[in-house]
Amino acid sequence: MALIVQKYGGSSVGSLDRIHQVADKIIQAKEAGHDVVVVVSAMYGETDRLIRLANALTQQPEAREFDMLIATGEQVSMALLSMALNAKQCAARSFTGHQVGIHTDGVHTNARILEVKTDIIQRELNKGNVVIVAGFQGVNAHGDITTLGRGGSDTTAVAIATAVKAHECQIYTDVAGVYTTDPHLVPEASLLPQISFEEMLEMASLGAKVLQMRSVELASKYNMPIRVLSSFADGPGTLVTFEDKIMVKRLVSGIAFSREEAILSLSGIPPHLGMEGRILSKIGDMHIEIDMIAQNMTGEDAVDFTFTVSRREFTKALKAVEELAEELHATSIKTNSKVAKISLVGIGMRSHTGVASTMFKALGDAGINIQMITTSEIKISVVIDEIHLETGVRAIHRAFELDKLPASSEQLFIE
Amino acid sequence: MALIVQKYGGSSVGSLDRIHQVADKIIQAKEAGHDVVVVVSAMYGETDRLIRLANALTQQPEAREFDMLIATGEQVSMALLSMALNAKQCAARSFTGHQVGIHTDGVHTNARILEVKTDIIQRELNKGNVVIVAGFQGVNAHGDITTLGRGGSDTTAVAIATAVKAHECQIYTDVAGVYTTDPHLVPEASLLPQISFEEMLEMASLGAKVLQMRSVELASKYNMPIRVLSSFADGPGTLVTFEDKIMVKRLVSGIAFSREEAILSLSGIPPHLGMEGRILSKIGDMHIEIDMIAQNMTGEDAVDFTFTVSRREFTKALKAVEELAEELHATSIKTNSKVAKISLVGIGMRSHTGVASTMFKALGDAGINIQMITTSEIKISVVIDEIHLETGVRAIHRAFELDKLPASSEQLFIE
Repeated sequence: MALIVQKYGGSSVGSLDRIHQVADKIIQAKEAGHDVVVVVSAMYGETDRLIRLANALTQQPEAREFDMLIATGEQVSMALLSMALNAKQCAARSFTGHQVGIHTDGVHTNARILEVKTDIIQRELNKGNVVIVAGFQGVNAHGDITTLGRGGSDTTAVAIATAVKAHECQIYTDVAGVYTTDPHLVPEASLLPQISFEEMLEMASLGAKVLQMRSVELASKYNMPIRVLSSFADGPGTLVTFEDKIMVKRLVSGIAFSREEAILSLSGIPPHLGMEGRILSKIGDMHIEIDMIAQNMTGEDAVDFTFTVSRREFTKALKAVEELAEELHATSIKTNSKVAKISLVGIGMRSHTGVASTMFKALGDAGINIQMITTSEIKISVVIDEIHLETGVRAIHRAFELDKLPASSEQLFIE
Repeated sequence: MALIVQKYGGSSVGSLDRIHQVADKIIQAKEAGHDVVVVVSAMYGETDRLIRLANALTQQPEAREFDMLIATGEQVSMALLSMALNAKQCAARSFTGHQVGIHTDGVHTNARILEVKTDIIQRELNKGNVVIVAGFQGVNAHGDITTLGRGGSDTTAVAIATAVKAHECQIYTDVAGVYTTDPHLVPEASLLPQISFEEMLEMASLGAKVLQMRSVELASKYNMPIRVLSSFADGPGTLVTFEDKIMVKRLVSGIAFSREEAILSLSGIPPHLGMEGRILSKIGDMHIEIDMIAQNMTGEDAVDFTFTVSRREFTKALKAVEELAEELHATSIKTNSKVAKISLVGIGMRSHTGVASTMFKALGDAGINIQMITTSEIKISVVIDEIHLETGVRAIHRAFELDKLPASSEQLFIE
C-alpha cells in the first residue's frame, strides 16, 4: 500500500474508449490497495483546437485570456475521467489547478509552479476518493488561471507527487518505457527496467519523446522517482531514479542518436588568445544554435575548430564559417551537411575506461569513419555520415550486449 | 453614464465573426460612457457537444463532474470574447462564476444562486475594464462548480445586475425584442417599446422564446428592468419593467398563442361536493399536466367540467375522462384534439371591461366559434379550432390596432 501519482497524457485520454481504459488502470491500482492521485492532460487535439480558435480570432491573443481558454481542455478530460470512474463504482473527484491550489508565478502561458497545496488532496484521499487534478494549469497570486506551457502536465504530476510525498510518480505514455535505443531503428532494443536521472537527461534526444525534460530535472531535484509506463499495455515500465537506487548496474544504459545534423570545421587556424570566444560570439550573433564543439591542435602550431548545428541552420552557419576563416586566417574549411550523431550514455562509464575504445572499435569494424568525438562524464558522442546511422547504432548496441538485458525485474514495480 | 449588464446568448457568440460583432456592441456601450458587465453563454452547440460526450461515456454521468464538464463551455466563449475586446484596444477581463463569487446551493445541474459577490466586479470596473462573467455557472459551499440548468445565463445576468445595482439588464437575443404577437404568424406585428413584468410572464408562450421565465420572475422580484435586444441589429429593443414605469399605457400589449392543444369536456355531471378534487387528483395521478380549466352550471342541476392538455397527452387524458364519466355519472363526453389557444394580455384590461367583448366580437365577426374561455386579471384566453388560429390572431390584432403602435420611443433607450 502506497501513495502513487499517475499522469495520463493527451493520447491516453484521446477518446472515450481510452478514458475507460485509463479508468481501469486506476481501478487496478486502487484494488492493489494504493491511494491514487491522477493528473490528466487535455484530450489529444483539444488544446490545438482551442489555440486555433484563439489565433483565428486575433493575431495576438491576450495572454491571461489565452490561459483562461486553454485551461478548459484539462477540465473536460478530468471531468470525463472522473465520470468514468464513478460509473465503475470507483469514487473519484476532479479538481482544477485553481481548486486544488497549484500556485504559480504570474507568467501567463509559461508559468512556474511555486507551491502545491495538499489539504484538499489529502482530505479527498482520506475519504477514499481517487483525486483527479488538471495538469498543465495553476493559479497566480491574483486568482487568475495560468498554464505551464506545453508538456506542463508532467511537471504538475512531479510537483504534486513531491508535495504529497508520493511513493513514485507514474507517467503513462504511448510507449512501454525507456529503451536502450529507438526500437524503430533497432528492433532488438531492450526495455530498461531502471535508468538514473543523469542518464535520462543525457538521453534527452531519445528521452524527450517519452518524458518532458523539465519534469525530469524537477523530479531529480526533489528526489521523486518517475516511472514511465504504457497506458495501453501492462508492464512495469522504466523507473527513472537515483544512481544509488539502481539495482542492476550496467556499463552503459542506452544509445541516443539524432539525424539532421551538419558539421563544420575550420582548419589551420593560427592560435591566438580569445579565438574561441570570437568564433562563438559571431555564431551567437547570427542566432545559430551550436550542439557539439571540439577543438584540437593539428601540429605545426595550428588549431582545428569543429562544431555541429542542426541541418536547417547549415547555410547560415556556413556563411559564418566563411567569414571567420577570413578573419582568423584559417587554411581551410571542411563541412558535411549529411551527418548524424550517436551518443552512448551510461553511469558505468565513469569507472570503465574501456567503454570508448569498445565503441570506436565497433564502429571501425563496421567500416564507419568517425568525423568528430566529444565526451562528457557519462556520455560519448560521435558524428558519422548519416547513411551509416543504423549500422553504427546496431554495431554499438551489439558490442555492449544491450539486446541481452535481463528481463525487466517485475518485483521493482510497486503494484 | 450608467452601469449596464449585458447578456449574450449562445447564438450571439456562436462563431468567431459573431464574437467580433458582440465585441463591437460592447465597445459602443463603453464609448457611450457606460460601465459594462457582460454575461456570456457557451458558443451555440458547445454545451450539447459536451453533454453528448458525457452521455456517450456513461449512462448516468455523476452530477458534480457533469457540471465540471459543461462549465467549460462558458469559459471558452468568455475568454474568446475578452481576447476580441483586448485586440480592439478595449481592456477586458473574464472571470468564471467561481472566480467572481457566484455562490449557489448544492443542487448540481440545477443550482440556485444564493449570493453574488461584487468586490471583484467592482474592482475591475474601477480600473475601467469591461468585466466578462461566465453565465450559467457558480460555486457551492464546498468550492465545487455548479450549473444553473438550461437558460441559466439569463438568471446569472439578472442576479449580477441586481447585485451591482445596474441601471438595467440587457438581454441580447436573435430577435429585435418582444412583439405584440409572433411576427411569423402575423407579419404586421409591432415591436413593443415597453411591457410590464406581469404581462411578460402572462405572455410566457410567446415570451419563453425570448427570455427565460425564471429570470423574468427574478428581475421582477428584485426590481431590475430587463431590456431585450437583438445582437445582430441596432435598435432599442423592448424594456420589461414595472407597470408604474410604463410610459405609454395600452389597453392590451400582446397576443400569445399555442398550438398543439386538446380540449376535453365532461357534461351533465350531477353536482356533488369534492367532485372537482376527484377529477384533478385522478388526472394528476396519471401524470397528465392540465393547462386551462373551466367549469359551469348548465341548468337542470348539472355541471360541465372542461379542461385542456397538451395534444401529446390527449390519449392518456381521454382514458381518464372516460373513467371519470362513469364514476361521476356524467351524461356525455366531448373532446377535440385539434384546438389552439389564444391569449390576449394587457395590464389595461383591469380598468377596461370592454376588452373581452371586443375580443369575442372580433372572433365572431371572423366566423370563429369559441370553445372555451378563461380569464385572469390581465389575460383572457380562448380555445378555438386550430385551423382558425391565424385568422383569429389577426382579427384580434386588428381589433385592438396593435399594428398601429407608436414607433418605439428611442429616448427610452439609455444608450
